[in-house]
Amino acid sequence: MHLGTIRTGDGDTRAAVREDSDWILLDAADVGALITDPQWRDRAKTALANPATARVPERDAVLAAPIQRPAKIVCCGLNYHDHIVETGRDIPEYPTLFAKFADTLTDPAADIVIDGSAQVDWEAELVVVMGAPLRRGTREEAETAILGYTVANDISCRDWQARTLQWFQGKAWDGTTPIGPVVVTADTISPSTGLDITCEIDGEVVQRSTTRELVFDAATLAAYVSQFTELSPGDLILTGTPGGVGLGANPPRWLADGQVLTTTIEGIGTLQNTMRITAPDDQGSPA
Amino acid sequence: MHLGTIRTGDGDTRAAVREDSDWILLDAADVGALITDPQWRDRAKTALANPATARVPERDAVLAAPIQRPAKIVCCGLNYHDHIVETGRDIPEYPTLFAKFADTLTDPAADIVIDGSAQVDWEAELVVVMGAPLRRGTREEAETAILGYTVANDISCRDWQARTLQWFQGKAWDGTTPIGPVVVTADTISPSTGLDITCEIDGEVVQRSTTRELVFDAATLAAYVSQFTELSPGDLILTGTPGGVGLGANPPRWLADGQVLTTTIEGIGTLQNTMRITAPDDQGSPA
Repeated sequence: MHLGTIRTGDGDTRAAVREDSDWILLDAADVGALITDPQWRDRAKTALANPATARVPERDAVLAAPIQRPAKIVCCGLNYHDHIVETGRDIPEYPTLFAKFADTLTDPAADIVIDGSAQVDWEAELVVVMGAPLRRGTREEAETAILGYTVANDISCRDWQARTLQWFQGKAWDGTTPIGPVVVTADTISPSTGLDITCEIDGEVVQRSTTRELVFDAATLAAYVSQFTELSPGDLILTGTPGGVGLGANPPRWLADGQVLTTTIEGIGTLQNTMRITAPDDQGSPA
Repeated sequence: MHLGTIRTGDGDTRAAVREDSDWILLDAADVGALITDPQWRDRAKTALANPATARVPERDAVLAAPIQRPAKIVCCGLNYHDHIVETGRDIPEYPTLFAKFADTLTDPAADIVIDGSAQVDWEAELVVVMGAPLRRGTREEAETAILGYTVANDISCRDWQARTLQWFQGKAWDGTTPIGPVVVTADTISPSTGLDITCEIDGEVVQRSTTRELVFDAATLAAYVSQFTELSPGDLILTGTPGGVGLGANPPRWLADGQVLTTTIEGIGTLQNTMRITAPDDQGSPA
């Protein structure tokens, strides 16, 4: 099943389920609100079976970030075998985790407006969407609590990220993590079988890997995070990025104003975002 | 003005303003909800002037975390001159920042339940409470946007914190950051003048400093954070801890089950929390 959040033109949004080339509108503001109801699958089936339910043809649909206000966004770094081996590091024993805010997210086709960074980098990522509460869960319980998967680009301001030991201030810029375009439920795809993941800049492929390369897979990450904090429906786990980021190039390479960033995971879909980058001034310095 | 959130016995909470030794109940679920209304001061004054307003004597009041669900909690590390000098580090050019979730917070007198860490440490901290939106603000604008101050203890699971480069997983355990007991408005106290800050374990003073030692003060931190993310009423900034944490002792020293942790800032108040710590098992390991 493919779930999405559709912009309905008046500033509002509606959750929707895809049938062929139509989006069938559901009675919830977004996928995040929809899935807080444990009976959401029944509601979706009822809507699909009712010929009177409002439909939006896919070509007319403007998709929003599917989960508009997740309570928790946990991100994992250093999580692709190929990328870790390429950088000469050891395979880590524990996942490296940090957080983002709901405000960090933006729509799958939004412009990415960054005012004040000169080192904007890309990170194509698989995102785990939680569908049920999980606290101190086993890997098997985590598997059951996962609703599905979506795509994000964890666009990072490397100059800010490198200012201190903690990455957060380079990772939590408002409206800089596009997410979507849809959530594909876990009964439809399985990242552990290997989904192609790519990132392109103006059509040039800069990242290409497969989700089979994840060191800590979706269920392992969810179980691990749930040891210290409860995960709830709509919470997100960004699972890290493969090799090919700008920081790893020699010399390093950064996104430029006007470039188009395209992020795709096989079986889920594509984010396409135009960069709107303004050179930094000295406002950011507290000195 | 002293603002608090009072537990009203039926699982609900109410915002309140202190007058002498009484709490005057206000028409909002918590201080966070109260201050989203820009007219909250008028509402508080009206309630104070009305002899019919419900009052709770201070000795009967059970105080909750004053802000129940902040959208953003930003924490600063390495921010006390005395602590930095003591550790032989240089004074940093930029604040070191990381995030917590709303679920990380707990009440000012709550038991702190930690199941799965063997290295639980203390960090007495001044907390900045935002009172107005702030985006790309100057230091002066930040000063105006600060509502006031409260106390927290950024209790940290050092074993988890040290597993990877990012501190987050040692800092975001549900219900482990007590906060309160009250929010004192910025027209009543000024941390830059130097408020004593102390932390005690079973009555033994382990941290003692003054907020005058902050490298990045409240307004500087708020202005800095607002360069990349908008701050809103009720958002919190934890400003870092002075020297004297367990990690810095030789040998390192950790909190034990049953110990009472007491955290005080002059002019704001005291948190008093009993530790409920269970030894770790191997559930936390994803290996």
